[in-house]
Amino acid sequence: MASGQKPAVSYLGPTASYSHQAVRQMFPEESWTLEPVYTIDDVFEQVQSGSTKVGVVPFENSTNGSVVFTLDDLADRAGIFPDITVVGEIFVDVHHFLVGHFPSEPSSAAVVSPDGSGTCTPTAYDPAPLKPRAKPLCSLQHVKRLYSHPQAFGQCNAFTAAYLRGVEVFEVSSTSKAAEIVAADETGTWAAISSELAAEMHPVDVLAKSIEDRKDNTTRFLVISTDTKIQDSWDVRRRVPPAGEGGLGSKSMISFTVPHSAPGALAEALSCFKAFEVNLTSINSRPSLEKPFHYLFFVEFEGKRGEERVEGALEKVGRVAESWRWLGSWERYR
Amino acid sequence: MASGQKPAVSYLGPTASYSHQAVRQMFPEESWTLEPVYTIDDVFEQVQSGSTKVGVVPFENSTNGSVVFTLDDLADRAGIFPDITVVGEIFVDVHHFLVGHFPSEPSSAAVVSPDGSGTCTPTAYDPAPLKPRAKPLCSLQHVKRLYSHPQAFGQCNAFTAAYLRGVEVFEVSSTSKAAEIVAADETGTWAAISSELAAEMHPVDVLAKSIEDRKDNTTRFLVISTDTKIQDSWDVRRRVPPAGEGGLGSKSMISFTVPHSAPGALAEALSCFKAFEVNLTSINSRPSLEKPFHYLFFVEFEGKRGEERVEGALEKVGRVAESWRWLGSWERYR
Repeated sequence: MASGQKPAVSYLGPTASYSHQAVRQMFPEESWTLEPVYTIDDVFEQVQSGSTKVGVVPFENSTNGSVVFTLDDLADRAGIFPDITVVGEIFVDVHHFLVGHFPSEPSSAAVVSPDGSGTCTPTAYDPAPLKPRAKPLCSLQHVKRLYSHPQAFGQCNAFTAAYLRGVEVFEVSSTSKAAEIVAADETGTWAAISSELAAEMHPVDVLAKSIEDRKDNTTRFLVISTDTKIQDSWDVRRRVPPAGEGGLGSKSMISFTVPHSAPGALAEALSCFKAFEVNLTSINSRPSLEKPFHYLFFVEFEGKRGEERVEGALEKVGRVAESWRWLGSWERYR
Repeated sequence: MASGQKPAVSYLGPTASYSHQAVRQMFPEESWTLEPVYTIDDVFEQVQSGSTKVGVVPFENSTNGSVVFTLDDLADRAGIFPDITVVGEIFVDVHHFLVGHFPSEPSSAAVVSPDGSGTCTPTAYDPAPLKPRAKPLCSLQHVKRLYSHPQAFGQCNAFTAAYLRGVEVFEVSSTSKAAEIVAADETGTWAAISSELAAEMHPVDVLAKSIEDRKDNTTRFLVISTDTKIQDSWDVRRRVPPAGEGGLGSKSMISFTVPHSAPGALAEALSCFKAFEVNLTSINSRPSLEKPFHYLFFVEFEGKRGEERVEGALEKVGRVAESWRWLGSWERYR
């Protein structure tokens, strides 16, 4: 529960996770109590029960795609989050740091090991392998174990292929947990891929900075709440202010299913938006679990509830879809 | 390489994986050499290089959704699998077994432990928790560790919540690997969620059968090849023969991108199929990696290359899409 009079925001912890970075961008600690929880489900449960006023969950990464756990909670097949809608979005530019312990021999510190020269061997299957964008700040020859979250491993392939070949890999539940494990290592041979924030918050050395494959590696988070009007009143910090006087406009999301056997039903549902000149900005699908290979679709589109074009499109969707659910409108940030 | 004169089929190993079950359904060992490989990437590489004639990869599970690694290889952003198309599909009904070692005290064998009675505690958030479909064949009180693949854990939530609460969970690369680890356990306290085939092939006891949450838990595999005509000549075993004299018809797949800024571009691309009365059977999206939050879409549809309606739809897609790629036609099995 919130301490004192401050409302609370729950997010996927632990402390120093990328979700934590997202929360810090929008919710200043002067006005909000920040509550890390263990799972995305926990964020949804806290928000639905009213334990926290808002929740922040990862939705998609520009390199790895959608976060299915968040989609599944939005799908809400069991009907346990009936009052939750999306009320905001936050973008975090993801920079991964390699953290661990500097090598014990001083001579090799601050030099790149000869067998980790950063070259990528072209092969028949990958004639132009991705080059790592960053160089290590010291030799990495002493590194025997590498801890991180699977998504982070997936975003640092070029660096690990060039500099950490043959190192044993351990998948853990968060990049922040990885940093914590490595901070407790007494052998000095474990390293973690983690956020800059985690590197700051744990007693570890930074062995390399911004080791992600792509410069444009961004994660988009959604802000969820049971109070659709909360945006009008919350005290938020805006590091990325909306461009132009009128901002960037709004976005909205719905989920829907279409009859399994109806020809072209999905195309017909999507054409409802086109008919009212409402642009779709994303589409996702998950198994509906009603029958095998029947899907629940999620679409995001420009505009907000109350606008004539949006109401027109939704009215039409209601006639084409088997079922549908409103999932919120929010102010667009990018 | 194939031994003797038999052509080879590569699949995601190890031996006794669900991919192995899929391969056994279609490719009889009398006519084919079965080659397990380590990753989905390896299957694609072997097929592209000609080391194997065909490959079998998981595509989607009716409970957990799409397999992003397969989508990413089909996306082929680096252009390293130019000759691969989909030439077939295989459905495997997934039954998970709990395997391990019977408890050492004979008195408790064959009885269900009192603290694992199979009841699911209703909570405010989950008033009607999923009931497990299976009962253990013996007490599970001695089980301290549980090994499996993340997808399998995700498919057995009700059973593990009811009977294996508090057991330490270890995610490994395959259900088959999990069975192998448990077979080597000398403490007798480790268990694995694995396939029936893995249970048969390793020296383990079956502690529970068909522990999956849903009866209709099915994985669909794709058969890939560089030879689009291979279907006409291969010697395959068909456990699920096509219904009716003319079979179930064909399915096809393409991938495409649409201009990021064009209003309704996705709806327009999909309406090309509707215009020619071609039914879509699935849609997936992955980051295009051309720019953040720009997507590559995958659609499957009824019909095959050469049919007038399909050619008509594709010609229209070619005019609307930014880019598109043909990914194959095959005989439908369900």
